Amino acid sequence: MRNPLSDKVIKMKPSGIRKFFDIVSEMPDAISLGVGEPDFDTPWSVREEGIYSLEKGRTFYTSNAGLLELREAICEYTDRRFHIAYNPKSEVLLTVGGSEGIDVALRAMLNPGDEVIIPEPCFVSYVPCVELADGIPVIISLKNENRFRLTKEELENAITDKTKVLMLSYPNNPTGAVMEREDLEAIAEVVIKHDIYVISDEIYAELTYNSGHVSIASLPGMRDRTIVINGFSKAFAMTGWRLGYALGPAMIMEQMTKIHQFAIMCAPTTSQYAAIAALRECDKDVERMRESYDQRRRYLLNEFKEMGLSCFEPYGAFYIFPCIKEFGMTSEEFATKLLNAKKVAVVPGSAFGECGEGFLRISYAYSLEELKVAIGRLKSFIEEIRG
Amino acid sequence: MRNPLSDKVIKMKPSGIRKFFDIVSEMPDAISLGVGEPDFDTPWSVREEGIYSLEKGRTFYTSNAGLLELREAICEYTDRRFHIAYNPKSEVLLTVGGSEGIDVALRAMLNPGDEVIIPEPCFVSYVPCVELADGIPVIISLKNENRFRLTKEELENAITDKTKVLMLSYPNNPTGAVMEREDLEAIAEVVIKHDIYVISDEIYAELTYNSGHVSIASLPGMRDRTIVINGFSKAFAMTGWRLGYALGPAMIMEQMTKIHQFAIMCAPTTSQYAAIAALRECDKDVERMRESYDQRRRYLLNEFKEMGLSCFEPYGAFYIFPCIKEFGMTSEEFATKLLNAKKVAVVPGSAFGECGEGFLRISYAYSLEELKVAIGRLKSFIEEIRG
Repeated sequence: MRNPLSDKVIKMKPSGIRKFFDIVSEMPDAISLGVGEPDFDTPWSVREEGIYSLEKGRTFYTSNAGLLELREAICEYTDRRFHIAYNPKSEVLLTVGGSEGIDVALRAMLNPGDEVIIPEPCFVSYVPCVELADGIPVIISLKNENRFRLTKEELENAITDKTKVLMLSYPNNPTGAVMEREDLEAIAEVVIKHDIYVISDEIYAELTYNSGHVSIASLPGMRDRTIVINGFSKAFAMTGWRLGYALGPAMIMEQMTKIHQFAIMCAPTTSQYAAIAALRECDKDVERMRESYDQRRRYLLNEFKEMGLSCFEPYGAFYIFPCIKEFGMTSEEFATKLLNAKKVAVVPGSAFGECGEGFLRISYAYSLEELKVAIGRLKSFIEEIRG
Repeated sequence: MRNPLSDKVIKMKPSGIRKFFDIVSEMPDAISLGVGEPDFDTPWSVREEGIYSLEKGRTFYTSNAGLLELREAICEYTDRRFHIAYNPKSEVLLTVGGSEGIDVALRAMLNPGDEVIIPEPCFVSYVPCVELADGIPVIISLKNENRFRLTKEELENAITDKTKVLMLSYPNNPTGAVMEREDLEAIAEVVIKHDIYVISDEIYAELTYNSGHVSIASLPGMRDRTIVINGFSKAFAMTGWRLGYALGPAMIMEQMTKIHQFAIMCAPTTSQYAAIAALRECDKDVERMRESYDQRRRYLLNEFKEMGLSCFEPYGAFYIFPCIKEFGMTSEEFATKLLNAKKVAVVPGSAFGECGEGFLRISYAYSLEELKVAIGRLKSFIEEIRG
């Protein structure tokens, strides 16, 4: 039999996160600080709305773009929180999580050979999704000394005449980095000068711990060259509901909706009804979760300081990204030894790009009690290898 | 600003079904026989399981491939109903409806320029999904006199040295055609001889009205060269839940799972829990719905016979595909006039491929009461144009 597979798909590596956690799942007394998923159940008022919609028999397709009432609620929310106005009828697409939004945006925008600039470390799906859409990923290795922010010099150096899109992702997974307004203004200037587009993955927008989130789409001249990706998974603890959305100029959204229509049809209906409640009734739940994350974040920062573990202060998402270069091991070696010796699972920074080598991604989407046990074990591991 | 869009995506036409129903949605007293969606609510035991999972706070990601318990239930069901054995750990992928399964299968298998044979009339997503995956759609125009079955001669004539995949879709949308075991055996022989693969969309497998469904994957030598696409939307009236699955050899499923991991993450969690109940508790509900469809199907056939409207007997899905060539109008003209004159909406056959020209797709996923009103109007429309 002949080879049934696509060459480019065979070459794609599977996610480095999942590989690691297949081991963990077979180690019952291990503590994992690995998964990028809120530890909270979805707020009850959201689940209640989902239950109500099932009781009422709302089990049919919605329109391809999603329920109009939800699109309207998303536009109100986006205007209220991030000060950008979108038209619910033509500039919003409900997607299956932020993941589908990224995939569909790239498919709608790229011609073969178009370059997409991807600052790393970053979420594991960007490079494969660019490759699947026949684009060329151009990697920028972000620097610890810049707190993993993208600088305009780095961007300028990466741009060629084939550059079409910049993937931007702040608050960032895995580093916890944020970009402030003035950082984004510098980037916007370069983007506009070179006439390129931005896909801005803002799935952690609600999880910032210094000042509020600024979307690059809200800066002058950027709205019509930005696709904002957002969703319900992180802010509202709704990962399993698989509901995200893309916001952007009608011209691009129309093409994205066409792909979504053929490849997906519509986002899950129960999730769409429930999400209306999330946007309208859950400000306090979001606030409560944000405060918990912040408490844990400060706890970890303090512990790492006491351990003498080098770590810049992350102001967003629910990750912390300590440097472990002093121990002379790769991230994968360190994580593997920590898991075997102390049964604590963290993700090697190298899973998020080569420049993540020498770092660990530690998620604090775990209770303070779990974090305390895990940190106790990490501390004793570090003491042992320091001799 | 430069053009932000992909050339091939701009060229893709949006679905001809949706275009038509945008008009209908603004005509409040119109009766639609257009949508390809069961008119039944999801069975209560399925909704109850969804509600229970929300109450319990099962709102987290599942593994990329889907809940193992559901994959096991799917394998038991497929073996019981269609006599094919799959390994739940390596040969099943839960997808966002059958749509995602088709998209991901094509993405996993095609290299640029690979030809995919698509017998038409067919579901509107096949051609665009092949184009999105850089494949070349090669159309076979099926014939009314063959009851829209694919013959081995037609297949032989379409195969070139670039052919990689045959898209097969029986019971068929839009024609209602089925292929019996001996029809499929003839096709399988050609497929094996030319060493090509089959993506077999069997989403209507539970809806057959003469003998039971035969999957081409169950024929000798076909299991390892077939990806079966199935799901919960049609048989269990679960369209809005967005849950389907793909079954196939581990080598291909592994690559499909990788794409799904990056582009989607996992199918909706509530739907996955509910679907276990669908497979284990809903045989009688499926039977009851099938009997309703069959009753309506026989009603329509009888009415068309009385009207003198040429129509072969469809044995599957919930569509009937009468020929309207005698009226000397295109399908679109006929459908538009029928809508304007009598406020009955049907889909022009040409929405499903050029060879659908001269036919109408009429869905009987509507109550007998609605069908009776609509058929009364159709009858008077036909009498009027016949003079």
